[in-house]
Amino acid sequence: MGYRDNIQLTADRKLRHFLTIEGLPRQILIDILDNAENFATVGERVIKKVPLLRGTTIVNLFFENSTRTRTTFELAAKRLSADVINFNINTSATSKGESLLDTLHTLQAMQSDMFVVRHAESGAAHFIARQVADHISVINAGDGRHAHPTQAMLDMFTIRRHFGEFASLKVAIVGDILHSRVARSEIHALTTLGVDEVRVIAPRTLIPADIETLGVHIFHDLKAGLKDVDVIIMLRLQNERMDGAFLPSESEFYHTYGMTQEKLLLASKRAIVMHPGPINRGVEIDSTVADGKQSVILEQVSNGIAVRMAVMSMCMGAMQQED
Amino acid sequence: MGYRDNIQLTADRKLRHFLTIEGLPRQILIDILDNAENFATVGERVIKKVPLLRGTTIVNLFFENSTRTRTTFELAAKRLSADVINFNINTSATSKGESLLDTLHTLQAMQSDMFVVRHAESGAAHFIARQVADHISVINAGDGRHAHPTQAMLDMFTIRRHFGEFASLKVAIVGDILHSRVARSEIHALTTLGVDEVRVIAPRTLIPADIETLGVHIFHDLKAGLKDVDVIIMLRLQNERMDGAFLPSESEFYHTYGMTQEKLLLASKRAIVMHPGPINRGVEIDSTVADGKQSVILEQVSNGIAVRMAVMSMCMGAMQQED
Amino acid sequence: MGYRDNIQLTADRKLRHFLTIEGLPRQILIDILDNAENFATVGERVIKKVPLLRGTTIVNLFFENSTRTRTTFELAAKRLSADVINFNINTSATSKGESLLDTLHTLQAMQSDMFVVRHAESGAAHFIARQVADHISVINAGDGRHAHPTQAMLDMFTIRRHFGEFASLKVAIVGDILHSRVARSEIHALTTLGVDEVRVIAPRTLIPADIETLGVHIFHDLKAGLKDVDVIIMLRLQNERMDGAFLPSESEFYHTYGMTQEKLLLASKRAIVMHPGPINRGVEIDSTVADGKQSVILEQVSNGIAVRMAVMSMCMGAMQQED
Repeated sequence: MGYRDNIQLTADRKLRHFLTIEGLPRQILIDILDNAENFATVGERVIKKVPLLRGTTIVNLFFENSTRTRTTFELAAKRLSADVINFNINTSATSKGESLLDTLHTLQAMQSDMFVVRHAESGAAHFIARQVADHISVINAGDGRHAHPTQAMLDMFTIRRHFGEFASLKVAIVGDILHSRVARSEIHALTTLGVDEVRVIAPRTLIPADIETLGVHIFHDLKAGLKDVDVIIMLRLQNERMDGAFLPSESEFYHTYGMTQEKLLLASKRAIVMHPGPINRGVEIDSTVADGKQSVILEQVSNGIAVRMAVMSMCMGAMQQED
Repeated sequence: MGYRDNIQLTADRKLRHFLTIEGLPRQILIDILDNAENFATVGERVIKKVPLLRGTTIVNLFFENSTRTRTTFELAAKRLSADVINFNINTSATSKGESLLDTLHTLQAMQSDMFVVRHAESGAAHFIARQVADHISVINAGDGRHAHPTQAMLDMFTIRRHFGEFASLKVAIVGDILHSRVARSEIHALTTLGVDEVRVIAPRTLIPADIETLGVHIFHDLKAGLKDVDVIIMLRLQNERMDGAFLPSESEFYHTYGMTQEKLLLASKRAIVMHPGPINRGVEIDSTVADGKQSVILEQVSNGIAVRMAVMSMCMGAMQQED
Repeated sequence: MGYRDNIQLTADRKLRHFLTIEGLPRQILIDILDNAENFATVGERVIKKVPLLRGTTIVNLFFENSTRTRTTFELAAKRLSADVINFNINTSATSKGESLLDTLHTLQAMQSDMFVVRHAESGAAHFIARQVADHISVINAGDGRHAHPTQAMLDMFTIRRHFGEFASLKVAIVGDILHSRVARSEIHALTTLGVDEVRVIAPRTLIPADIETLGVHIFHDLKAGLKDVDVIIMLRLQNERMDGAFLPSESEFYHTYGMTQEKLLLASKRAIVMHPGPINRGVEIDSTVADGKQSVILEQVSNGIAVRMAVMSMCMGAMQQED
């Protein structure tokens, strides 16, 4: 798929939708990081608002409940001075038998400017992006096992703030790769930004079959995989998304793949530990690590607002984007 | 009931509440349409906000769930720069045993300026309008089988935008007239604005006994009723509001009263097809009609924001109104 | 506990958190009342907004549902031009197993400025205030049986507006003292502000054991207790919070402790009747009293917005506070 075919970009290769990292030019990712850098200082000011999106209407279209993610998008939108509508799809017209498409067209006719979409089905955000009118942008806030691109970019932002660059870094993603839209988006972002090495560390049952085609190294042994890595991205154990018997037990998982201070010593001394949250203490991560000085988990949350402000502004054409 | 007795008007005959079309002077309806024309362009601007109602508080008081209608009022209010409170009456103090009247007086004491009321009981908005203090306006967002006046006015606005006038038009309202607050409000609006003819087309079981007193012509045969009409208003089949056996079946209804391309040919060549939404495809309307070039269903949605902005502004005394 | 140890105050004895009246210097209470006086006029203006907290983020963190209280805080925040996030803790990450502390730290990392906390457990707001970062203020919107300080202060404001001072007043609090966080906060406020006498009137089963240590007089007989009082604060019968058999029946309670016009004659002629709402008509108060000319129940609601605006502004350092 060439860039011209990418529905995420306008004809002159500016960001229009933000659905997946896959297929995006490296320069777009750099632009997001650079713009987020400006917004990060906004969050630290007494008045945390900029008027960039004043008078625009952003609809949070959440088919899958997630107070936390919705809140970060709502905050980002409000700090850009946009009006936000939280459209709870469970209590909406679709329960009266209206089709998804009719709901979309109706919201569009209300002169909405952006849909932030969360959906349990992979591909839902792409489907919606293909249906909307020219003036509407779609941001994927997580679709099934497919992608969660703003989460990936806030992690890239956090990494760049710590190390200043990507080329020298070894990054390990640990845990339930199979069910994780976060993992998939991280891998695309890390390889596009050109890190030295991406590793995935997980039991055989939690690694998708095609993962090596993405250019990652697979480790089943945590200790071997952690050797010399600079960034450790722990994944949430998606209990609610597992329907089979992928794991013997939570305690066995913790014993083998849970991050502890002792195991952390195997990584590079300068290593940082990341987690998209919410964390399961004592399941995928020990409290001493989560609250320790190498943890950047709360920085990720702060950075998430800045990165979402950047993506929203760029999609709305309100920000400088490199040609 | 003379105009002076109409609780919807102030002593000098300006709009104060908007509860029903019945009894409103023609000039008020014209003012709403003229003001909505100005707001329609607001929705097309990059910055879709005007400061007319800045600093006012509008409470969405929905006793009956309707995400779609609530969203249009919320958007209209926000584009007028008002503050909006969504007061979910099911989870509120009334569930602790507080009476409706005490809830109203409490919201009023919080210096609210307007209540937008949706209720399953006919007459609820009137009841509330009679209780509130002098500075509060009430807008009926649908009460039982009684009225839905903003829906009627957005349809009048859509008709006027297409034909420029009302006097020459034949209008048919098709479907479940009996349970439809929309139909009742449409009929009052159409006759007040002086269309040439209003027809209702429905089976005997779905027509109220007194309907002819409103000055409409009744047709039980769709094909006969559609002859030469310029505007076709399809009604939603209110399954959720039917408690008896009014209909043999949905498919039989579709066969006899559902709008298809073939039946549409019986109407005037310039005819437009309207529907208040959400539509039941294949029940009251065929997809080829709903998505066809004579359909103005999505225009109705856009116009709904402009008309609600006009009504809200006029009730709040923020707009020019003719004497 | 000396003032220096009071976590509610900054090092220079300004208000930072507002968790309980207990231990607060009299001057802080006077400042709240004086600032609320300014905000009370804001609510009466056409444009009811001031830009004091523009660009700040206030999170309504309600672990216990209360549409009414949440709405007053939301309105107060919006009239100060703050952005408001309603964080429904039941549908949030805590249901995915995240700890309360992790949720707090996450919201804090999103650059929130204030948490308004409602919780069924006594002490919850204090617990949260001890965990948050330096730049965050916590306001207690009711915690278990412990405190509801903004309710107490809006009552003090209502009293001062009626009598101009506190020193000459006899105040009776009537009803379920045992389960009432409101009663506890009222008593601290009244004694700190130096009223002449505070009485509690209730059956033995609804009075906590240690109440006399707070400097109040106990009456079990309503008629004796009402003699010469200037302010009567009726409490809501907290049916939903009673799990034992504290009362023979509602009708017996009404007969013995319910406020009627006849009993009201026993109080001072200038007496006012207060109630925090929502009221149970015919249980703790008769409609002729609730709607009578000595009732100030709806004034309390209006004053609640002004007092919450004052407390929010002071905690955020946006208002003058006496040294």
